[in-house]
Amino acid sequence: MGDSGNSAAATVFIHPVTVRWADCDPAKIAFTGRIPYFALEAIDAWWDANVGYDWFRINVDRDVGTPFVHLSLDFRSPVTPRHILFCEVRLIRLGESSVRFAVRGEQDGVTCFEGQFVEVFVKASAHRKIAVPEDIRSKLEALVSEEPR
Amino acid sequence: MGDSGNSAAATVFIHPVTVRWADCDPAKIAFTGRIPYFALEAIDAWWDANVGYDWFRINVDRDVGTPFVHLSLDFRSPVTPRHILFCEVRLIRLGESSVRFAVRGEQDGVTCFEGQFVEVFVKASAHRKIAVPEDIRSKLEALVSEEPR
Amino acid sequence: MGDSGNSAAATVFIHPVTVRWADCDPAKIAFTGRIPYFALEAIDAWWDANVGYDWFRINVDRDVGTPFVHLSLDFRSPVTPRHILFCEVRLIRLGESSVRFAVRGEQDGVTCFEGQFVEVFVKASAHRKIAVPEDIRSKLEALVSEEPR
Amino acid sequence: MGDSGNSAAATVFIHPVTVRWADCDPAKIAFTGRIPYFALEAIDAWWDANVGYDWFRINVDRDVGTPFVHLSLDFRSPVTPRHILFCEVRLIRLGESSVRFAVRGEQDGVTCFEGQFVEVFVKASAHRKIAVPEDIRSKLEALVSEEPR
Repeated sequence: MGDSGNSAAATVFIHPVTVRWADCDPAKIAFTGRIPYFALEAIDAWWDANVGYDWFRINVDRDVGTPFVHLSLDFRSPVTPRHILFCEVRLIRLGESSVRFAVRGEQDGVTCFEGQFVEVFVKASAHRKIAVPEDIRSKLEALVSEEPR
Repeated sequence: MGDSGNSAAATVFIHPVTVRWADCDPAKIAFTGRIPYFALEAIDAWWDANVGYDWFRINVDRDVGTPFVHLSLDFRSPVTPRHILFCEVRLIRLGESSVRFAVRGEQDGVTCFEGQFVEVFVKASAHRKIAVPEDIRSKLEALVSEEPR
Repeated sequence: MGDSGNSAAATVFIHPVTVRWADCDPAKIAFTGRIPYFALEAIDAWWDANVGYDWFRINVDRDVGTPFVHLSLDFRSPVTPRHILFCEVRLIRLGESSVRFAVRGEQDGVTCFEGQFVEVFVKASAHRKIAVPEDIRSKLEALVSEEPR
Repeated sequence: MGDSGNSAAATVFIHPVTVRWADCDPAKIAFTGRIPYFALEAIDAWWDANVGYDWFRINVDRDVGTPFVHLSLDFRSPVTPRHILFCEVRLIRLGESSVRFAVRGEQDGVTCFEGQFVEVFVKASAHRKIAVPEDIRSKLEALVSEEPR
């Protein structure tokens, strides 16, 4: 997905998704409702690779929840099983108790969708908003990227 | 879901969804990725009830596709199996070849999410953009609502 | 779905499912993997209607889990969005700590699938098998049906 | 997944699945309905790797459909996001117009589920049963394994 300089290399993350028959509707393309799933899967993989916790472990092992308060997607081109779907994830904002991601999906060199997703941090057992835990914040600070190109 | 005047009554459509165990994640609320599914289901039901075609029939029987080019959602409150999820659908814009819907989800009197969804019309077999077919446009014109409150 | 005698009427439960575009694959029929979902949804609805607990409430409110140890399905005819899918659920065996259901799906008078599903009772927080709780057993005993026709 | 002799090596196929938060229910394990999806995904991957067609391509490019007429699953142990789920797929029977697969899921050395799945061959556009096409049959014949251990 293009050549990245060193600093971009530190903050861009690409998660491949194999789109399948099971994901497609009678129009022979991935059903609209599957695209948020793909993007969310890519963000979950980003957490695991970059912070050391996926959503399951951060919830169950740390009692930290990260529910979404916003998502938006623009669909540029259909997603099909013909090519691997590469989902590029960038952390573009780190707030006191929230994070904003940009996700871009690409197949065969073509941008299929672009979106933004916002999670907030909560104490999972109490459903109460919390500041980003310090050990996680220090990792996130190094990962914040500029606004998506 | 609030008192509606006569003209609103003509254009507001409410689709009930029974949220289940199958929809929930370990946080004991509906998984983020399920919410677009609920909203899309409500829009599909809107088409069937208001235009006389659901997405399956308009595609297979009319060769008219209505792929999404945009969706956005703001999550206000968790969705759970404790109450029926009422999805209010309003057609808020009718373009030359596109439609924009506002969808609001409510449980137990509380707004859970609000979103907007844009579909474009295509000749399904050709994946080519078309104007809204005349018989459908005449039905849609009577259904356009003001911007969501 | 056929005429039932009085005793059958007491033990047969029919759950309607609206099959949608979102459920269908490029063959224009419900994807194979969706059929277990429909049957499971019908069983969850059976619990709610007959025992007063759906899976969410029995787990969260009673700390009783009912995980599946078996499911099997024979697919007789494709499931499509053309007709409502009526799922007939029958409790056909009640063991010390397990229940077995028969589920039959029908569209437009045609049997689409038949299957059997076995759940066991566990203390949810401990993942430990338990006997069927007494208040639930007494309700289930009145609901056991003969083997499916 | 155990040591395999040479002939077994030729016929066993293992497909890894990353189980995620999105797949889990409030019991903190993969929802029952997700397990058939995992097994079906493994079979789809088997087709692609062994025959050169996944379900999408064999349908769209060859007009050959392979709908399921049967599936059964025994759940031995919960599936969780803690470990990769390895799905072992074996073609165990090749009929005139059908194939039977055994699928076994394993996490962390423990068998989580075992199942069997039967597909039939049809001319996709006509929904009419056909014999296994010759070029595909010749590939399948070399892949038939003994009944699952």
